[in-house]
Amino acid sequence: MRTISWDADRECVEMVDQTALPADFRTYHAETVPELIESIEILRVRGAPALGAAGAYGVALSAHQRTAENSGSLLEAIEDDASKIAAARPTAVNLERGVTAALEAARDGESNAVVRGLALESAETLADRDVERNKAIGEYGAELLGQDDTVMTHCNAGALATVDWGTALGVVYSAREAGKSIDVIANETRPLNQGSRITTTELMERDVPTRLIPDNASGLVMQEGEVDALVVGADRIILDAAEQFGEQGVVFNKIGTYKHAVLANRHDIPFIVAAPRSTIDASSSPEEVQIEERDPSELHEIYGTQNAPKEVPVRNPAFDATPMELVDYLVTERGVFEPPLDVSPFE
Amino acid sequence: MRTISWDADRECVEMVDQTALPADFRTYHAETVPELIESIEILRVRGAPALGAAGAYGVALSAHQRTAENSGSLLEAIEDDASKIAAARPTAVNLERGVTAALEAARDGESNAVVRGLALESAETLADRDVERNKAIGEYGAELLGQDDTVMTHCNAGALATVDWGTALGVVYSAREAGKSIDVIANETRPLNQGSRITTTELMERDVPTRLIPDNASGLVMQEGEVDALVVGADRIILDAAEQFGEQGVVFNKIGTYKHAVLANRHDIPFIVAAPRSTIDASSSPEEVQIEERDPSELHEIYGTQNAPKEVPVRNPAFDATPMELVDYLVTERGVFEPPLDVSPFE
Repeated sequence: MRTISWDADRECVEMVDQTALPADFRTYHAETVPELIESIEILRVRGAPALGAAGAYGVALSAHQRTAENSGSLLEAIEDDASKIAAARPTAVNLERGVTAALEAARDGESNAVVRGLALESAETLADRDVERNKAIGEYGAELLGQDDTVMTHCNAGALATVDWGTALGVVYSAREAGKSIDVIANETRPLNQGSRITTTELMERDVPTRLIPDNASGLVMQEGEVDALVVGADRIILDAAEQFGEQGVVFNKIGTYKHAVLANRHDIPFIVAAPRSTIDASSSPEEVQIEERDPSELHEIYGTQNAPKEVPVRNPAFDATPMELVDYLVTERGVFEPPLDVSPFE
Repeated sequence: MRTISWDADRECVEMVDQTALPADFRTYHAETVPELIESIEILRVRGAPALGAAGAYGVALSAHQRTAENSGSLLEAIEDDASKIAAARPTAVNLERGVTAALEAARDGESNAVVRGLALESAETLADRDVERNKAIGEYGAELLGQDDTVMTHCNAGALATVDWGTALGVVYSAREAGKSIDVIANETRPLNQGSRITTTELMERDVPTRLIPDNASGLVMQEGEVDALVVGADRIILDAAEQFGEQGVVFNKIGTYKHAVLANRHDIPFIVAAPRSTIDASSSPEEVQIEERDPSELHEIYGTQNAPKEVPVRNPAFDATPMELVDYLVTERGVFEPPLDVSPFE
């Protein structure tokens, strides 16, 4: 099933509720725009590509929910919702892009019904294309893996981070489809444990041999020679020359990615970023990217139990920045690129 | 109060129950050797120097608990307990050393009463010396810190990892006593969260400005220039030339230490190991050190809530190995040493 889709009967957005994993595999129906925004904020739906679809479906949901006398005032109401949806999480570029795509499509509608139809069609197309793109990313990336490689991955850039198939885990799935015996070491990925909760769940469902480690153990297993490749996704890739991160650009991805890139570099393990071209932001500079700071409660408590003194100040950034110099391969739906990258094809 | 001590009235070992932190600050009385061993295994008492005291007090507890017709058979019974206590956790050298010290002392006793007295006296002396040593480590280490430095630390090498004062955090406390405005960034330290549960608790009790971060965020805060020094403790330091870890020896410490050493190295942040000389094992080679593999349940669940599919295989090593090449300063009670170290003073 798809991570996120349109429920045509109920005219709302259906998604796998990833906050309930691994204990429960259940779906959630966002029937209103505020429910959709909440779903993005609390990570019911997450992962840059899935957020792109969530943004587009959110615009379609708004179009179906809002009532207006004519398409002009309907579009005004949708635009109001759209800006709130786009702001639900700031770091991944895809959310905003998904919102914009559906909104642009809707603007061509000259009646309420056509506005609704165009917004939904745009969202469905975006979702379909996401799956196609991930299959292409997977096939290109699979060529980088050897017959019996062990892949380490961080966070979840799998089927559940996309509409289906996944980016980083898509590479694993495609390699296995091509007959390679790939197994995976999944980092727990504190503080929201996407690795232990989501990545292991989807890998085991697909019968991929999987081991779970605490994030702190990744250095040791690299030192032991257990890891043949590190494959991660990306939330935003900036190609602008950036003094603070080196001159080749920078990959914003789940907090902890940078540490793993540095370790992979030390151990001569290929560090592979698998992401659709839509993740590449050729127009911003790194300084313009806001790294989302999440709630201190994610450290003060774990699953409702106290984990730290209530009054201790917390830093809880959701993403970090990996200089492109540490990236060995960038895999997109167009192929495998080896940094330093020529900016022009991405502009 | 001391982390671990002898309760003379009840003739048993009293300790701060660190499994209850941060919600509760309570003490536990180990009244039997099995209770003491369990306390070591489940980390009621933890930290290499505190484990040294726990080992010695454990021998004293055995001496008081066991009944025998004469000192010879009493010693045989104690030796039996002693080997079990020493095996409760394999990686830190101090546990075995504490056990051996108290046992050696007890062997001079020619009556049951004297055996008991000598074992206890040895444990009390070891505990007193631990505090003195930590103060010396703190004072030497404090000289490495600047007026307003921010120290990052991993796990807990504080008062609660020792009998009192601490090693890594002892450096912070001594620097603050000397008038420096040191603040601390504490890594959470998955999977047992000693950083969030224990380090933050003891720092805040001593009014040290403290921030808690997830382990994954340490790279980002180093990148941001927030960290002036990384100070950690050690569980076992091997000085033997070791091909797999480089030729200068290796520091075994809490899982994740190696990653932080690599990151500190990349960001030119001094990486400081603060540990008593008793942590230095000049007679073993790295291959002989057993890295404790802990129970998968520590990843499958957090505080009793499911965190991963129950059937996913887990690697959960408690320690890792940091090549001495990555260590800028080793601080012991005898002073500050800059690797490469001359082995002879430690033999």
